Amino acid sequence: MGREVKVELTNMCMVCDGTKVLVQDRVKKDWRGVAFPGGHVEAGESVTDSVIREMKEETGLTIRNPRLCGLKDWERDDGTRYIIFYYRADEFSGELKPSEEGKVFWAELSELPKMNLAVDVDLSLRVLLEEDLSEFFIDHRNGGRERCLL
Amino acid sequence: MGREVKVELTNMCMVCDGTKVLVQDRVKKDWRGVAFPGGHVEAGESVTDSVIREMKEETGLTIRNPRLCGLKDWERDDGTRYIIFYYRADEFSGELKPSEEGKVFWAELSELPKMNLAVDVDLSLRVLLEEDLSEFFIDHRNGGRERCLL
Repeated sequence: MGREVKVELTNMCMVCDGTKVLVQDRVKKDWRGVAFPGGHVEAGESVTDSVIREMKEETGLTIRNPRLCGLKDWERDDGTRYIIFYYRADEFSGELKPSEEGKVFWAELSELPKMNLAVDVDLSLRVLLEEDLSEFFIDHRNGGRERCLL
Repeated sequence: MGREVKVELTNMCMVCDGTKVLVQDRVKKDWRGVAFPGGHVEAGESVTDSVIREMKEETGLTIRNPRLCGLKDWERDDGTRYIIFYYRADEFSGELKPSEEGKVFWAELSELPKMNLAVDVDLSLRVLLEEDLSEFFIDHRNGGRERCLL
Protein backbone atom coordinates (compact mmCIF):
# COMPACT_ATOMS: atom_id res chain seq x y z
CA MET A 1 0.00 0.00 0.00
CA GLY A 2 1.07 3.57 -0.53
CA ARG A 3 3.90 2.76 -2.90
CA GLU A 4 3.14 5.53 -5.37
CA VAL A 5 5.88 7.41 -7.19
CA LYS A 6 5.56 10.64 -9.16
CA VAL A 7 5.33 9.88 -12.84
CA GLU A 8 4.78 11.96 -15.97
CA LEU A 9 2.58 9.76 -18.19
CA THR A 10 2.76 10.43 -21.92
CA ASN A 11 2.07 8.73 -25.25
CA MET A 12 3.56 8.70 -28.73
CA CYS A 13 2.02 7.12 -31.81
CA MET A 14 3.31 5.92 -35.15
CA VAL A 15 0.36 6.23 -37.55
CA CYS A 16 1.00 4.03 -40.60
CA ASP A 17 -0.36 4.20 -44.13
CA GLY A 18 1.27 1.38 -46.08
CA THR A 19 5.01 2.15 -46.20
CA LYS A 20 4.49 5.71 -44.96
CA VAL A 21 4.41 6.96 -41.38
CA LEU A 22 3.11 10.23 -39.97
CA VAL A 23 5.80 12.41 -38.43
CA GLN A 24 6.02 15.85 -36.88
CA ASP A 25 8.88 18.31 -37.35
CA ARG A 26 8.95 19.64 -33.82
CA VAL A 27 9.67 23.31 -33.27
CA LYS A 28 9.47 23.30 -29.45
CA LYS A 29 12.75 24.09 -27.76
CA ASP A 30 12.81 21.08 -25.46
CA TRP A 31 12.92 18.40 -28.14
CA ARG A 32 13.48 19.60 -31.71
CA GLY A 33 13.53 17.55 -34.87
CA VAL A 34 11.45 14.92 -36.63
CA ALA A 35 9.52 12.65 -34.25
CA PHE A 36 6.18 10.96 -33.86
CA PRO A 37 3.35 13.03 -32.41
CA GLY A 38 2.12 12.50 -28.86
CA GLY A 39 1.27 14.14 -25.57
CA HIS A 40 0.18 13.66 -21.98
CA VAL A 41 -2.25 11.20 -20.40
CA GLU A 42 -4.85 13.31 -18.59
CA ALA A 43 -6.39 12.59 -15.18
CA GLY A 44 -9.16 10.00 -15.32
CA GLU A 45 -8.34 9.07 -18.93
CA SER A 46 -7.28 5.65 -20.18
CA VAL A 47 -3.91 5.54 -21.92
CA THR A 48 -5.64 4.39 -25.11
CA ASP A 49 -8.08 7.29 -25.04
CA SER A 50 -5.18 9.69 -24.44
CA VAL A 51 -3.36 8.62 -27.59
CA ILE A 52 -6.55 8.83 -29.67
CA ARG A 53 -7.19 12.36 -28.32
CA GLU A 54 -3.61 13.53 -28.86
CA MET A 55 -3.52 12.28 -32.46
CA LYS A 56 -6.76 14.18 -33.14
CA GLU A 57 -5.40 17.37 -31.54
CA GLU A 58 -1.96 17.26 -33.10
CA THR A 59 -2.62 15.80 -36.56
CA GLY A 60 -6.36 16.15 -37.21
CA LEU A 61 -6.67 12.39 -37.77
CA THR A 62 -9.03 10.10 -35.90
CA ILE A 63 -7.14 6.87 -35.25
CA ARG A 64 -8.81 3.56 -34.45
CA ASN A 65 -7.48 0.51 -32.62
CA PRO A 66 -4.07 1.86 -31.58
CA ARG A 67 -1.87 -0.99 -30.34
CA LEU A 68 0.64 -0.70 -27.52
CA CYS A 69 4.12 -1.59 -28.86
CA GLY A 70 6.34 -0.74 -25.91
CA LEU A 71 7.63 1.89 -23.51
CA LYS A 72 10.32 4.49 -23.15
CA ASP A 73 11.06 5.50 -19.58
CA TRP A 74 13.66 6.97 -17.28
CA GLU A 75 14.09 8.24 -13.76
CA ARG A 76 14.92 11.91 -13.38
CA ASP A 77 17.39 13.32 -10.86
CA ASP A 78 14.58 14.23 -8.45
CA GLY A 79 13.39 10.60 -8.36
CA THR A 80 10.34 11.18 -10.55
CA ARG A 81 9.85 8.94 -13.60
CA TYR A 82 8.91 9.81 -17.16
CA ILE A 83 7.04 7.17 -19.16
CA ILE A 84 6.13 7.29 -22.86
CA PHE A 85 3.66 4.63 -24.02
CA TYR A 86 4.49 3.79 -27.65
CA TYR A 87 1.54 3.04 -29.90
CA ARG A 88 1.06 2.10 -33.52
CA ALA A 89 -2.15 2.73 -35.48
CA ASP A 90 -2.90 1.41 -38.96
CA GLU A 91 -6.49 2.64 -39.13
CA PHE A 92 -7.49 6.28 -39.34
CA SER A 93 -9.82 8.77 -40.97
CA GLY A 94 -9.91 12.55 -41.41
CA GLU A 95 -7.66 15.18 -42.92
CA LEU A 96 -4.19 16.27 -41.80
CA LYS A 97 -4.04 19.65 -40.14
CA PRO A 98 -1.06 21.73 -38.97
CA SER A 99 -0.17 21.76 -35.28
CA GLU A 100 1.40 24.39 -33.03
CA GLU A 101 4.07 21.86 -32.14
CA GLY A 102 5.27 21.55 -35.73
CA LYS A 103 4.35 20.54 -39.26
CA VAL A 104 2.95 17.02 -39.61
CA PHE A 105 3.54 15.07 -42.81
CA TRP A 106 3.75 11.57 -44.27
CA ALA A 107 7.24 10.16 -44.78
CA GLU A 108 8.50 6.86 -46.14
CA LEU A 109 9.54 4.77 -43.15
CA SER A 110 12.74 3.83 -45.02
CA GLU A 111 13.65 7.53 -45.39
CA LEU A 112 13.47 8.32 -41.67
CA PRO A 113 17.15 7.53 -40.92
CA LYS A 114 18.18 10.28 -43.38
CA MET A 115 16.01 12.89 -41.66
CA ASN A 116 16.88 15.32 -38.90
CA LEU A 117 15.38 13.09 -36.22
CA ALA A 118 14.85 14.33 -32.67
CA VAL A 119 17.15 12.77 -30.06
CA ASP A 120 16.64 9.01 -29.59
CA VAL A 121 13.91 8.64 -32.23
CA ASP A 122 16.14 6.06 -33.93
CA LEU A 123 16.01 3.89 -30.80
CA SER A 124 12.30 4.51 -30.25
CA LEU A 125 11.73 3.28 -33.77
CA ARG A 126 13.41 -0.01 -32.97
CA VAL A 127 11.04 -0.61 -30.03
CA LEU A 128 8.09 0.29 -32.27
CA LEU A 129 9.15 -2.04 -35.06
CA GLU A 130 10.94 -4.99 -33.44
CA GLU A 131 8.63 -7.61 -31.93
CA ASP A 132 11.21 -8.74 -29.39
CA LEU A 133 11.79 -5.28 -27.93
CA SER A 134 9.37 -3.89 -25.32
CA GLU A 135 11.23 -1.07 -23.60
CA PHE A 136 13.75 1.69 -24.18
CA PHE A 137 15.03 2.51 -20.69
CA ILE A 138 17.49 5.28 -20.00
CA ASP A 139 19.50 4.25 -16.97
CA HIS A 140 20.71 7.44 -15.30
CA ARG A 141 22.05 5.63 -12.25
CA ASN A 142 24.48 3.30 -13.93
CA GLY A 143 26.93 4.67 -16.44
CA GLY A 144 25.53 8.17 -16.62
CA ARG A 145 22.92 8.11 -19.36
CA GLU A 146 23.17 4.53 -20.53
CA ARG A 147 20.57 3.56 -23.12
CA CYS A 148 19.09 0.06 -22.80
CA LEU A 149 16.87 -1.65 -25.36
CA LEU A 150 15.01 -4.38 -23.46
CA MET B 1 6.79 20.60 -17.19
CA GLY B 2 5.85 19.37 -13.78
CA ARG B 3 2.89 17.28 -14.91
CA GLU B 4 3.64 14.33 -12.68
CA VAL B 5 0.89 12.28 -11.06
CA LYS B 6 1.24 9.76 -8.26
CA VAL B 7 1.26 6.26 -9.70
CA GLU B 8 1.76 2.79 -8.25
CA LEU B 9 3.76 0.95 -10.92
CA THR B 10 3.44 -2.84 -10.94
CA ASN B 11 3.92 -5.81 -13.25
CA MET B 12 2.28 -9.18 -13.88
CA CYS B 13 3.62 -11.95 -16.06
CA MET B 14 2.14 -14.96 -17.80
CA VAL B 15 4.99 -17.48 -18.08
CA CYS B 16 4.12 -20.05 -20.77
CA ASP B 17 5.34 -23.61 -21.32
CA GLY B 18 3.52 -24.91 -24.38
CA THR B 19 -0.19 -25.04 -23.48
CA LYS B 20 0.52 -24.52 -19.78
CA VAL B 21 0.79 -21.24 -17.88
CA LEU B 22 2.28 -20.50 -14.48
CA VAL B 23 -0.27 -19.31 -11.93
CA GLN B 24 -0.28 -18.41 -8.26
CA ASP B 25 -3.06 -19.22 -5.80
CA ARG B 26 -2.92 -15.98 -3.85
CA VAL B 27 -3.47 -16.10 -0.10
CA LYS B 28 -3.09 -12.35 0.57
CA LYS B 29 -6.25 -10.72 1.83
CA ASP B 30 -6.33 -7.90 -0.72
CA TRP B 31 -6.68 -10.02 -3.84
CA ARG B 32 -7.35 -13.74 -3.29
CA GLY B 33 -7.61 -16.47 -5.88
CA VAL B 34 -5.72 -17.78 -8.88
CA ALA B 35 -3.77 -15.10 -10.75
CA PHE B 36 -0.48 -14.53 -12.49
CA PRO B 37 2.48 -13.60 -10.31
CA GLY B 38 3.85 -10.07 -10.23
CA GLY B 39 4.91 -7.18 -8.05
CA HIS B 40 6.14 -3.59 -7.91
CA VAL B 41 8.54 -1.69 -10.13
CA GLU B 42 11.30 -0.39 -7.84
CA ALA B 43 12.96 3.03 -7.99
CA GLY B 44 15.62 3.28 -10.69
CA GLU B 45 14.61 -0.06 -12.22
CA SER B 46 13.36 -0.61 -15.77
CA VAL B 47 9.91 -2.18 -16.05
CA THR B 48 11.45 -5.15 -17.86
CA ASP B 49 14.00 -5.72 -15.09
CA SER B 50 11.23 -5.47 -12.50
CA VAL B 51 9.24 -8.30 -14.06
CA ILE B 52 12.34 -10.50 -14.37
CA ARG B 53 13.18 -9.85 -10.69
CA GLU B 54 9.62 -10.47 -9.48
CA MET B 55 9.32 -13.76 -11.36
CA LYS B 56 12.58 -14.91 -9.77
CA GLU B 57 11.42 -13.89 -6.29
CA GLU B 58 7.90 -15.27 -6.53
CA THR B 59 8.37 -18.41 -8.63
CA GLY B 60 12.09 -19.26 -8.58
CA LEU B 61 12.22 -19.12 -12.40
CA THR B 62 14.58 -16.94 -14.40
CA ILE B 63 12.60 -15.63 -17.35
CA ARG B 64 14.16 -14.28 -20.53
CA ASN B 65 12.81 -11.88 -23.14
CA PRO B 66 9.51 -10.98 -21.46
CA ARG B 67 7.27 -9.15 -23.93
CA LEU B 68 4.88 -6.35 -23.01
CA CYS B 69 1.31 -7.35 -23.98
CA GLY B 70 -0.73 -4.54 -22.49
CA LEU B 71 -1.80 -2.63 -19.41
CA LYS B 72 -4.39 -2.66 -16.67
CA ASP B 73 -4.92 0.69 -14.98
CA TRP B 74 -7.35 2.76 -12.99
CA GLU B 75 -7.57 6.01 -11.08
CA ARG B 76 -8.24 5.73 -7.36
CA ASP B 77 -10.55 8.04 -5.41
CA ASP B 78 -7.59 10.11 -4.19
CA GLY B 79 -6.54 10.84 -7.80
CA THR B 80 -3.57 8.47 -7.77
CA ARG B 81 -3.31 5.88 -10.55
CA TYR B 82 -2.50 2.18 -10.40
CA ILE B 83 -0.81 0.64 -13.45
CA ILE B 84 -0.08 -3.05 -14.05
CA PHE B 85 2.23 -3.78 -16.99
CA TYR B 86 1.21 -7.17 -18.45
CA TYR B 87 4.02 -9.34 -19.74
CA ARG B 88 4.31 -12.74 -21.36
CA ALA B 89 7.44 -14.90 -21.24
CA ASP B 90 7.99 -18.10 -23.22
CA GLU B 91 11.63 -18.63 -22.21
CA PHE B 92 12.74 -19.52 -18.70
CA SER B 93 15.09 -21.69 -16.68
CA GLY B 94 15.30 -22.83 -13.05
CA GLU B 95 13.07 -24.72 -10.65
CA LEU B 96 9.70 -23.72 -9.21
CA LYS B 97 9.77 -22.71 -5.58
CA PRO B 98 6.94 -21.83 -3.18
CA SER B 99 6.20 -18.16 -2.45
CA GLU B 100 4.85 -16.37 0.61
CA GLU B 101 2.12 -14.95 -1.57
CA GLY B 102 0.75 -18.36 -2.49
CA LYS B 103 1.46 -21.68 -4.17
CA VAL B 104 2.71 -21.42 -7.76
CA PHE B 105 1.90 -24.19 -10.24
CA TRP B 106 1.48 -24.97 -13.93
CA ALA B 107 -2.07 -25.06 -15.25
CA GLU B 108 -3.51 -25.74 -18.67
CA LEU B 109 -4.49 -22.36 -20.14
CA SER B 110 -7.79 -23.91 -21.25
CA GLU B 111 -8.59 -24.93 -17.65
CA LEU B 112 -8.22 -21.43 -16.20
CA PRO B 113 -11.87 -20.41 -16.69
CA LYS B 114 -12.91 -23.30 -14.38
CA MET B 115 -10.57 -22.19 -11.59
CA ASN B 116 -11.22 -19.89 -8.66
CA LEU B 117 -9.70 -16.90 -10.43
CA ALA B 118 -8.96 -13.66 -8.58
CA VAL B 119 -11.21 -10.73 -9.52
CA ASP B 120 -10.82 -9.58 -13.14
CA VAL B 121 -8.21 -12.20 -14.11
CA ASP B 122 -10.60 -13.32 -16.87
CA LEU B 123 -10.42 -9.84 -18.42
CA SER B 124 -6.66 -9.56 -17.88
CA LEU B 125 -6.30 -12.81 -19.76
CA ARG B 126 -8.06 -11.34 -22.78
CA VAL B 127 -5.59 -8.44 -22.92
CA LEU B 128 -2.71 -10.90 -22.59
CA LEU B 129 -3.98 -13.19 -25.34
CA GLU B 130 -5.80 -10.97 -27.86
CA GLU B 131 -3.52 -9.08 -30.24
CA ASP B 132 -6.01 -6.28 -30.77
CA LEU B 133 -6.41 -5.47 -27.07
CA SER B 134 -3.84 -3.25 -25.34
CA GLU B 135 -5.51 -2.04 -22.17
CA PHE B 136 -7.96 -3.01 -19.46
CA PHE B 137 -9.03 0.30 -17.96
CA ILE B 138 -11.37 0.55 -14.98
CA ASP B 139 -13.27 3.79 -15.35
CA HIS B 140 -14.28 4.88 -11.87
CA ARG B 141 -15.53 8.26 -13.02
CA ASN B 142 -18.13 7.12 -15.50
CA GLY B 143 -20.64 4.49 -14.52
CA GLY B 144 -19.13 3.62 -11.18
CA ARG B 145 -16.64 0.84 -11.86
CA GLU B 146 -17.08 0.37 -15.58
CA ARG B 147 -14.64 -2.09 -17.13
CA CYS B 148 -13.29 -1.17 -20.56
CA LEU B 149 -11.26 -3.43 -22.82
CA LEU B 150 -9.41 -1.14 -25.22
